[in-house]
Amino acid sequence: MSSIESRYGRLLSDFEVGATYEHPWEVTVDGGTLALFQASFLDATPIYSSAVLAKSCGLSDRPLHPLLCLNLGLSFSVHDVSEQAIAHLAYIDVRFPEAGYVGDTVRARSTVLGVKPASSGDKGVVHVRTILENERGAVLCAFERKALIRAGKLAERPQWALSTAAAEGAKTPDVQSFPSVPKALRDGGKGGFGPYANDFEPGQVFTHAIGKTIGESEHMQLTALVRNSHPLHFDHDYCKVHSFTKQRVVYGGLVLTWVATLASRDLAGRALWEVGLDAGAHPNGVIGGDTLYAASKVLAVDGEKVTFRLVGVKNRTSAGAYAEHGDALFEDELSKKEGRIKEKVVEITRTLLLRRK
Amino acid sequence: MSSIESRYGRLLSDFEVGATYEHPWEVTVDGGTLALFQASFLDATPIYSSAVLAKSCGLSDRPLHPLLCLNLGLSFSVHDVSEQAIAHLAYIDVRFPEAGYVGDTVRARSTVLGVKPASSGDKGVVHVRTILENERGAVLCAFERKALIRAGKLAERPQWALSTAAAEGAKTPDVQSFPSVPKALRDGGKGGFGPYANDFEPGQVFTHAIGKTIGESEHMQLTALVRNSHPLHFDHDYCKVHSFTKQRVVYGGLVLTWVATLASRDLAGRALWEVGLDAGAHPNGVIGGDTLYAASKVLAVDGEKVTFRLVGVKNRTSAGAYAEHGDALFEDELSKKEGRIKEKVVEITRTLLLRRK
Amino acid sequence: MSSIESRYGRLLSDFEVGATYEHPWEVTVDGGTLALFQASFLDATPIYSSAVLAKSCGLSDRPLHPLLCLNLGLSFSVHDVSEQAIAHLAYIDVRFPEAGYVGDTVRARSTVLGVKPASSGDKGVVHVRTILENERGAVLCAFERKALIRAGKLAERPQWALSTAAAEGAKTPDVQSFPSVPKALRDGGKGGFGPYANDFEPGQVFTHAIGKTIGESEHMQLTALVRNSHPLHFDHDYCKVHSFTKQRVVYGGLVLTWVATLASRDLAGRALWEVGLDAGAHPNGVIGGDTLYAASKVLAVDGEKVTFRLVGVKNRTSAGAYAEHGDALFEDELSKKEGRIKEKVVEITRTLLLRRK
Repeated sequence: MSSIESRYGRLLSDFEVGATYEHPWEVTVDGGTLALFQASFLDATPIYSSAVLAKSCGLSDRPLHPLLCLNLGLSFSVHDVSEQAIAHLAYIDVRFPEAGYVGDTVRARSTVLGVKPASSGDKGVVHVRTILENERGAVLCAFERKALIRAGKLAERPQWALSTAAAEGAKTPDVQSFPSVPKALRDGGKGGFGPYANDFEPGQVFTHAIGKTIGESEHMQLTALVRNSHPLHFDHDYCKVHSFTKQRVVYGGLVLTWVATLASRDLAGRALWEVGLDAGAHPNGVIGGDTLYAASKVLAVDGEKVTFRLVGVKNRTSAGAYAEHGDALFEDELSKKEGRIKEKVVEITRTLLLRRK
Repeated sequence: MSSIESRYGRLLSDFEVGATYEHPWEVTVDGGTLALFQASFLDATPIYSSAVLAKSCGLSDRPLHPLLCLNLGLSFSVHDVSEQAIAHLAYIDVRFPEAGYVGDTVRARSTVLGVKPASSGDKGVVHVRTILENERGAVLCAFERKALIRAGKLAERPQWALSTAAAEGAKTPDVQSFPSVPKALRDGGKGGFGPYANDFEPGQVFTHAIGKTIGESEHMQLTALVRNSHPLHFDHDYCKVHSFTKQRVVYGGLVLTWVATLASRDLAGRALWEVGLDAGAHPNGVIGGDTLYAASKVLAVDGEKVTFRLVGVKNRTSAGAYAEHGDALFEDELSKKEGRIKEKVVEITRTLLLRRK
Repeated sequence: MSSIESRYGRLLSDFEVGATYEHPWEVTVDGGTLALFQASFLDATPIYSSAVLAKSCGLSDRPLHPLLCLNLGLSFSVHDVSEQAIAHLAYIDVRFPEAGYVGDTVRARSTVLGVKPASSGDKGVVHVRTILENERGAVLCAFERKALIRAGKLAERPQWALSTAAAEGAKTPDVQSFPSVPKALRDGGKGGFGPYANDFEPGQVFTHAIGKTIGESEHMQLTALVRNSHPLHFDHDYCKVHSFTKQRVVYGGLVLTWVATLASRDLAGRALWEVGLDAGAHPNGVIGGDTLYAASKVLAVDGEKVTFRLVGVKNRTSAGAYAEHGDALFEDELSKKEGRIKEKVVEITRTLLLRRK
């Protein structure tokens, strides 16, 4: 009565610095993928929703929303990288060098940049770079991330789950040399609404007024849509044993996306591109039924590029959180010795390319 | 520690009679939009679901469901018209002059027809006409509606949220002169099921047997899909303060659509078009978990056009409601002095174009 | 105050052996249909999700997932066959002879193979064969099923709900002579992940580790998407009266699909086709909030064809169920005199076409 029970992901000793894992998912993105994304994230950036506007800006169609690409890349990597992870620790240097479109077939691969055992010996930090590309080799998203992984080797990992290391030519490319926005992108001269790049001033704080309550079905659907295979997000019986909250936890990539889109009507009605994200973390978790709110602080304005610190809080308005915590709301949670903000669910630095007046 | 907290919509003194507001949303409709619509509304009208049947009837593809167009137009206007509204009061003269298709990029604009302060001085009624059109200027939906709005001016409305009044040429057109069905539409001679136009007789009452329980995630997804930005529908913390029920309220355009589609298998299996809706209201609200039922009364049969009074009730069958209330079920709720039907959630007059035997 | 309350489906005396019912639904499948399917079923079979891989295997695009086709065929038939059914008893000889694609407009029809009254006189078993075909007459799915139906004739069934019996030429074809996989399908030589056909050995048992909690909204959306009109799945007030559990019951075709896809990462990463299903049943029901787990036992390996017995259990892991019940977990539940496994929700024999090493 023995049975085979395969598990995926890796424990700390399963990672090899320098190795590249080809993730198994291969998915043709269609209009339904976009519609489901739009049906949960009320994003107000017109270039991502209007083929007419996108074409007037030099693109060949509505591009896939960059945060959809981030979610696809992150989720595809779970099977090989983080399905056994205790926690996602950091988003680093997220870029969207080229535009993806409906009809693209996307794949992802990850290279291990570092493995650092903790002094406690029972866990460690894995640092990977992941890229998502389409069938023509266009890189739609590249990012680094760190995850906290238990020590050891995964006994139940079947031989066939070990993705072949990519061939030499298929290594993750050096994204440092990539353009920060799609080459064809230009200001189409009209369309959009709300503030221009030169309406922003460093130091401005926006407490975005409207929140979003997370439905159980909608977060599970989005998790499956992007092929995130971590059972923490959709397997209640697993969670009763393995989750701190004893409940399903909303996948962090979605939390980030909800918070970014809650800010979009105030900030991104004239955005042309999400240039990049950096220094991001999820200080606290989110469960179905929680209501998310967003706040943004302008860090820098550099021509068409405006850099914000974006923060998400749960179950209270961002105006309330800002009134209580002041500018500490925008400070890195994980480097704080005291005064941690327990309602903060995401913090990240983001740069938008915006039209100028 | 001051922050910017933008709010959208308008208070009574923000409206100017004759002004036209271009709503910011610009959305390319795709197959996913249709699939999500079909995944909540089990509509039985074949011309809206079958490209083969639609082409045999002179259209170039499956048309966008007229009630999807109504929901897009209504929702796009929330940002400028009703995001601060207390209540939606009336649907008036809803028309669907031209067919929209997958791939259309749609926008909407509204003209203020009237502003009428209430004698109490603290609120008033705003009357607007809204049209939804595609990038070729085809009008997919035109309607008037009335909303109850608080007095005053909206302090937090940012300068950039004031949509530019449309240029002269872009005023909402006089839809009175528009055709009531798409010009190309004709009876394709086959397809469909159920009753023909000449099977109906004035005075017939249909208590549609099957109900639909509303899921929290599904109504929130549909609300975001059509870009309805009123937090009453998806922001639980807002609702704890601002909603009479202290809960999220299902967006009325969806309630209307559920009730219409619950009637569709009995009435619309041979329908070719939704000619128009009129004299509609939502006497009571709906929350997630409620079960909706529909009843229809035939008001008139005029060749291929059959006019019904459509009523939706919640948490009891329409047969039960009709047995208790009789024909009063089909009488205007808001004009009743007494005997209001507290389970009635929508009432509207609708005309269908149906095939004849 | 009389009203018309139409009901659909049939009671036992409404069925005529040999009759063929053309089901009214006619639906153009789009990318959104696929996306919604993928958003609930985290299926790992790459040929169903990647146009690139599917084309390398001789198909003209991503094929519609065979289990989506089964769900469409089953659901379309509910209107005429099982909307009054007490229970779905058996899946028999399910085949997927040709591949369907996005853009196909699908219809279904059913032929009554047998009607067998029970000795109790109050009910009986109806046996039908159903096929789903596209507008070019390609048969995407063919299956037989048995349902338990109450005795009598359905009084409220309107004349217009009686689908015209199909013309002679439109009888359900003899699927015995059909190919078991699409003719054009061939091993594309690369792609996919996990075990090959010749990695399996008869007798192997897989207890798939990860489960899936069913959301209320998501199962209702999928039910409407495939046009399943049985109110047991989405009408809470109906269920309070007519459901044993007093709750909405998840449509069985979805339960089967969740369980099959929970097995997919371990078994079907190199699958090219779902050759067929047989001897299937749902011994117990599933409600929203239940968590499903899957187990598979290899019954036979015949070249590229591997036959499994697939079992689904609820609210406990399949490893736990196998540890308790041993091989009895894979034995037919309905033929057991004692020791029935109350957590088993589906059992079926399935054959996959898999790549060989």
